[in-house]
Amino acid sequence: MASNDTIVALATATGSGAIAVIRLSGPESIPIVNRIFKGKNLAEQASHTVHFGTIRNGDEVLDEVLVSLFIAPHSYTREDVVEISTHNSRYIIERIIELLIHNGARAARPGEFTLRAFLNGQMDLSQAEAVADLIASTSAASHRVAMQQMRGGFSDVLKQLREQLIQFASLIELELDFSEEDVEFANRSQLEALILEINGVIRKLIASFEQGNVLKNGVPVVIAGRPNVGKSTLLNTLLNEERAIVSDIAGTTRDTIEDEINIHGVAFRFIDTAGIRDTLDIIEAKGVERTREKMRQARLIVYLADPQQDDLEEIKSQIAEVAQLDVPYVTVVNKMDLLKPEHIDALRVIAPLFISAKNNVGVEELKQELLHKVNLHNLDAGDVLVSNVRHVEALRKTEDALQRVLQGINGSVTSDFLALDIRQALHHLGEITGSVSTDDLLDNIFSKFCIGK
Amino acid sequence: MASNDTIVALATATGSGAIAVIRLSGPESIPIVNRIFKGKNLAEQASHTVHFGTIRNGDEVLDEVLVSLFIAPHSYTREDVVEISTHNSRYIIERIIELLIHNGARAARPGEFTLRAFLNGQMDLSQAEAVADLIASTSAASHRVAMQQMRGGFSDVLKQLREQLIQFASLIELELDFSEEDVEFANRSQLEALILEINGVIRKLIASFEQGNVLKNGVPVVIAGRPNVGKSTLLNTLLNEERAIVSDIAGTTRDTIEDEINIHGVAFRFIDTAGIRDTLDIIEAKGVERTREKMRQARLIVYLADPQQDDLEEIKSQIAEVAQLDVPYVTVVNKMDLLKPEHIDALRVIAPLFISAKNNVGVEELKQELLHKVNLHNLDAGDVLVSNVRHVEALRKTEDALQRVLQGINGSVTSDFLALDIRQALHHLGEITGSVSTDDLLDNIFSKFCIGK
Repeated sequence: MASNDTIVALATATGSGAIAVIRLSGPESIPIVNRIFKGKNLAEQASHTVHFGTIRNGDEVLDEVLVSLFIAPHSYTREDVVEISTHNSRYIIERIIELLIHNGARAARPGEFTLRAFLNGQMDLSQAEAVADLIASTSAASHRVAMQQMRGGFSDVLKQLREQLIQFASLIELELDFSEEDVEFANRSQLEALILEINGVIRKLIASFEQGNVLKNGVPVVIAGRPNVGKSTLLNTLLNEERAIVSDIAGTTRDTIEDEINIHGVAFRFIDTAGIRDTLDIIEAKGVERTREKMRQARLIVYLADPQQDDLEEIKSQIAEVAQLDVPYVTVVNKMDLLKPEHIDALRVIAPLFISAKNNVGVEELKQELLHKVNLHNLDAGDVLVSNVRHVEALRKTEDALQRVLQGINGSVTSDFLALDIRQALHHLGEITGSVSTDDLLDNIFSKFCIGK
Repeated sequence: MASNDTIVALATATGSGAIAVIRLSGPESIPIVNRIFKGKNLAEQASHTVHFGTIRNGDEVLDEVLVSLFIAPHSYTREDVVEISTHNSRYIIERIIELLIHNGARAARPGEFTLRAFLNGQMDLSQAEAVADLIASTSAASHRVAMQQMRGGFSDVLKQLREQLIQFASLIELELDFSEEDVEFANRSQLEALILEINGVIRKLIASFEQGNVLKNGVPVVIAGRPNVGKSTLLNTLLNEERAIVSDIAGTTRDTIEDEINIHGVAFRFIDTAGIRDTLDIIEAKGVERTREKMRQARLIVYLADPQQDDLEEIKSQIAEVAQLDVPYVTVVNKMDLLKPEHIDALRVIAPLFISAKNNVGVEELKQELLHKVNLHNLDAGDVLVSNVRHVEALRKTEDALQRVLQGINGSVTSDFLALDIRQALHHLGEITGSVSTDDLLDNIFSKFCIGK
């Protein structure tokens, strides 16, 4: 499986920073760098050592660098890997990469280092995909899902399922060899019990996708309510507080994602369409359908009411409309600072929460309620969550195949049909971990990686 | 001089990339990382080794990382340095830096690693300043100037000058101790010869600043000419060609600098003011002075003429105006594709170059002429160039002090005045390398560095 060429790419981000790392992987990594490095002879150095020296193009010194060596198989790709730590100058990086290419390396394609790690058995496909998820993670929740997947939590579950199925598939296929003799090596009721058990695990995994997806991509939330109830003010209060919390740690400029806030480690993404934030009016006839559509796509609706503007009956009828959408919702009364106490009592029946978005009163309680509503608090740290659409699709196909196996057992079909469906289930499980893969699938997955990973 | 606290910062750029490097320096670097690293015991490992493991906050795995150790004094800062190579996730980087700070590190200020390298004698001040110049370098020329300075070319010259002056200063000061006896340990004519020699070197260094500055910051160029002669078209042709040349190497997205082109390794910066590019008309009375001012600031003027629009005499009088500014200029006739051969012959007397900016004809010749005009082709690779305003100012003050020494020798002033002026010269030379420095000066220099450097 080992590659016969050597790839090179910048592995760090471009922009303002002190250092940059250029990475090579492949059989010629060390000889190629050795040709342009002045310092110790890299060919004679041990794995996992770092060496100071200069990169030279003839007599010209391009940079003073640190070179780290990782000798196969003790590297990310299981190939010889060299990392060159340079000053972070665009000019220097370009010149050094040019020089490395001139000396026999090839510019790496996106994700090609991780592709090699997968092809060389360092990780399975779902783990490789988790590397990209990990880099993209922006919250404790998305980080946790990606980290568990990268470290093989999901792979372990799949591996167990596959092993059980493979064992039975072998027995069934043995029956095919002796088909003239009409023996049954695989006990049908044991097989049925096993398939039911496996299907239970797979259904649980499929069901976890809703949470996994939300944790990975953020909870889509719509703030709904009539014009001028304070929807924009609430959103700004939530976002500004988030920006104020964001710590200014040593050079990590946090590119705050527009309309995303992080509540105790879970990202909430506010769906913002011109139709929602500024003009949403669920009563107004025009645009109602479009607005409803947006609200249906949300995982959560914050319904904001202003009793200065609408009377109790109006608010009740609006809430009834929201309730019909069958999406979890929170009813919130805004501008509480303008309400009289008896007014608040009358409203308490329909709205659990009172806030003043403008004065940042009650917003913390609202956040707690949002967190409570998405029901993520009962997750166990060890729970395996499926967060990848490709994986959940493969799991659904696996489930379909296993359903056919169950029907086959009950309908007493012949071993060859059972074997076919079990193989099909194994095939789909294998797609997740990459034990079954096509070039197209790999291209599709790794082309979405950044270059240098 | 060694610091008693440990600093931490992200050393790589933020943004899209595969890996990030978090760097610590100080006496507690290794113990602090050891507390949150699960893998080998870092305290027992050798310098310049790399270790795989996980960073943990209690049971939570924050990332799988590579940790590199550099044990004092064998590091950039001459202190214990640890570099943690993580996945490039904003979330992970922030969490790990938080954790390191929680365990006793302090967020580094801009340039604080290099400041420590200077304070610990790893490099002098002019070399430290060159580190920032090196990172900012965008052309072969600016890279070369910064690299030579970082590697101590300039420092070596200054060191020699200082040593010669110190020797004489000592002799003069010896005279002060024996002042009652009226002896002369320092031969006055030898001293004069030495000061003349040193002053010669210093004048050469001061003179090199014009080239050094241009190589570092780019050659400021103004494209001048009447409205509609094609100034914008020419600029766009030059810039577009540059952008097309910029190679698309393995992940290095080149942030092309607005209005800067790179001609054979030298950057040319086109001065763009609303008054220049769009409306420049050196004949028109209104705004003439402002335009002239801009042109005087340029190192080079490209005077563009269109004979379809103006007759020969008009063009001649415009050229005469440009010539008065005492800035090197190139006269270029545009829209040559529209000219008849006899027309070209008549114009050749006044304009050496004919182009069609629109059709990209003659533009390569123009570039060669620009390069020729700035007179950088006769530089020797070993020439030391001063590129820093602070340095040239200190050199000028040194020169002034040495002039006073010369006057003193010829005016037969007493040893104590000579000693004072020689000390003054030494002081200003010392400001460049930092053997004389104040906290304000250091703050001023290092606060311009990026964090993590």
